[in-house]
Amino acid sequence: MKLVTNPDKSTWSELLKRPTQTIEDIEATVKTVFNDIKINGDNAVEKYTSKFDGVTLLNNSVTEEEIAEAASKVDENLKTAIQLAKANIETFHSAQKTDRVEVETMSGVACWQEKRPIKKVGLYIPGGTAPLFSTVLMLAVPAQIAGCKEIVLCSPPNKEGKIANEILYAAQLCGVTKIIKVGGIQAIAALTFGTETIPQVYKIFGPGNQFVTVAKQLATQFGVAIDMPAGPSELLVMADDSANAAYVASDLLSQAEHGADSQVILVTTSKDFADNVSEEVETQLETLPRKDMAEISISNSKTIVVNDFDTALELIDTYGPEHFIVATENDDFFVENIGNAGSVFIGNYTPESAGDYASGTNHTLPTNGFSKAYSGVNLDSFQKSMTFQKISKEGIQNIGNAIELMAEAEGLQAHKNAVTLRLNDLINE
Amino acid sequence: MKLVTNPDKSTWSELLKRPTQTIEDIEATVKTVFNDIKINGDNAVEKYTSKFDGVTLLNNSVTEEEIAEAASKVDENLKTAIQLAKANIETFHSAQKTDRVEVETMSGVACWQEKRPIKKVGLYIPGGTAPLFSTVLMLAVPAQIAGCKEIVLCSPPNKEGKIANEILYAAQLCGVTKIIKVGGIQAIAALTFGTETIPQVYKIFGPGNQFVTVAKQLATQFGVAIDMPAGPSELLVMADDSANAAYVASDLLSQAEHGADSQVILVTTSKDFADNVSEEVETQLETLPRKDMAEISISNSKTIVVNDFDTALELIDTYGPEHFIVATENDDFFVENIGNAGSVFIGNYTPESAGDYASGTNHTLPTNGFSKAYSGVNLDSFQKSMTFQKISKEGIQNIGNAIELMAEAEGLQAHKNAVTLRLNDLINE
Repeated sequence: MKLVTNPDKSTWSELLKRPTQTIEDIEATVKTVFNDIKINGDNAVEKYTSKFDGVTLLNNSVTEEEIAEAASKVDENLKTAIQLAKANIETFHSAQKTDRVEVETMSGVACWQEKRPIKKVGLYIPGGTAPLFSTVLMLAVPAQIAGCKEIVLCSPPNKEGKIANEILYAAQLCGVTKIIKVGGIQAIAALTFGTETIPQVYKIFGPGNQFVTVAKQLATQFGVAIDMPAGPSELLVMADDSANAAYVASDLLSQAEHGADSQVILVTTSKDFADNVSEEVETQLETLPRKDMAEISISNSKTIVVNDFDTALELIDTYGPEHFIVATENDDFFVENIGNAGSVFIGNYTPESAGDYASGTNHTLPTNGFSKAYSGVNLDSFQKSMTFQKISKEGIQNIGNAIELMAEAEGLQAHKNAVTLRLNDLINE
Repeated sequence: MKLVTNPDKSTWSELLKRPTQTIEDIEATVKTVFNDIKINGDNAVEKYTSKFDGVTLLNNSVTEEEIAEAASKVDENLKTAIQLAKANIETFHSAQKTDRVEVETMSGVACWQEKRPIKKVGLYIPGGTAPLFSTVLMLAVPAQIAGCKEIVLCSPPNKEGKIANEILYAAQLCGVTKIIKVGGIQAIAALTFGTETIPQVYKIFGPGNQFVTVAKQLATQFGVAIDMPAGPSELLVMADDSANAAYVASDLLSQAEHGADSQVILVTTSKDFADNVSEEVETQLETLPRKDMAEISISNSKTIVVNDFDTALELIDTYGPEHFIVATENDDFFVENIGNAGSVFIGNYTPESAGDYASGTNHTLPTNGFSKAYSGVNLDSFQKSMTFQKISKEGIQNIGNAIELMAEAEGLQAHKNAVTLRLNDLINE
């Protein structure tokens, strides 16, 4: 890890810079696939699945038999673990339900706000070497609590034309209504336009590689919402001498193993502590199966030593980490004052992996500094708030004149007329 | 208005189609301006203000003296109307505050969700013939309630280098922290990158022409969030014989006067009522100052006669109108069951213009069918939810094993290690 001590504020922006990604060459490919699927539907989907996933499917919908078979093959202990995680995620996201907000702003002017589910949502779960079934829980559980009617899950098939057992088990456990073997750009395009077998949805959730990320961005131009823009995963740990160097090292490594582009930062007020963590990282790294990847990520990562907590807080807020672990003698200071972070992990016994899997919070979080403006996925991500107003005869008499004056001042005579007509009738009543 | 009676469901998608906008030629212009402002800051801003707004400004920041002078020139009755509207908007948006959501998902595993303000926000207010000061209220009031630290308002200067008095008055009334005379693409680019005089913000709100819309979309590629994708304003009225044809006509016209591309749709179960509205529209249209614009919009608009409320509801949900007025003998049916609409106006005495100005609800709403997935602007638009978790020694012992199993099954050994290390220490304690 690169060690930086007391960096001058003028260097922060450079120091905290994330690697930029070039997407322009990807964009052309994504546009081509979108256009093809828009016109040719399932035929085009089949073609790209064959090309990119190396498998030709007669039927891309997962059948009930396949799900039952997959479920029977998942280890029973793992099933119990998945059920525990699901229960915690359910508890936390159910607690996020809000009542209808109702106010009479003036006598006779009733206004209310209600949340209603997004009817059709698409969940994208990447394939690859490891099956990310935890993301199924993180997306399908709140979708079901919100009351989404259609929950469509897309995940790429492997060479045998299958989706991992754990993903199918988790999907069925969490009320996914349709599972489709399709991945990459073609999955996002199919969810955007709909095909003969794949339903069009209103919002697409889930992680993915650069192709999926660019495809999700393009989907927004066709009227489909997305959870958030994605970037490589990040962890920032704030720790002092009161923390445990071995634990901190294990947390940094658990972030680093995600990929060579993972962002890992340690901020500390203690140079000694930084040295201890560095040694621990070297030791723990040796035994990791994903050592090669983690090593690259760690070599790009930074340890920043600062003089005091105030400076640390300002630095962390400037960065806006996706995951923020704080283990210091005064965690409350950071918890109360942090303005920009996706999810915060407090104290020595709260590793990031707890939130990744089972504490109950969501692991789909804003990366790339987006925590400055974006929420992580939560119950509200699967609903939209709608407003209602009902004005009585008395009500329109109370606010009518104000509307008339404002509409006229904005040069919108018909807006004024709509009120004047009603007020005149009431005067004559 | 074009009359369509009992359209077959297979024709709905074509019938409800919004006009598509071509943005490709605009995109190139927007990218050029962004690039220039990113590199040349205020110099470039000045150049584009001179080019597009026809005025050269020595200083683009509005001074306190200018605000005081502007405020003194606003008509006192209008001030009172603005204050009434502000109070109602404040009441309704303050009621949207939510408490921290805190749950112990398992013994020793505390999780909570808190909303924190987006620190820096930019509000864009268009210029043009009429000063849209009502939009200042709709954006600045919730920003202030949310606790946003920097609220930067940009609006284009007129040929005399000024912003309308009403906009300056409303901005100062609602706690805007900085007002800048800059409009169009150059305003959005400046808020995205920051210049010597214009602060960089985390999220940009507000309406605008096609250039502003495309610029806001581009801003998202540089890490800035936006309120929502924008399109031409829309109104759908659902009415039956129990409604007042003159009122409905006045509401349709108040939407139509926004611009030639405004979308206006009347759905009704009564052909007679449709005819009455049509006649009323012709009569009322005659006296409108913006008659030419409204006439084009009305000529493109549609009246759809259906057999029953169920069909009407399904049709309306398929369209997902920005504004939805319902005036029927059973409004509750629509209010309870509508799934996709921005804001709903109920009964004969609730014209859309009430919500545009003064009822208390927000008038920044999802157009173009985005109500299927997007909320209108509300208090949450100015904050993000962050999650926190704090796990005790007991807590990690309760969920540790589940995390280990899940991490291992996902092939993430370091994620497992972070838990195992802690559990081992606790066993040995």
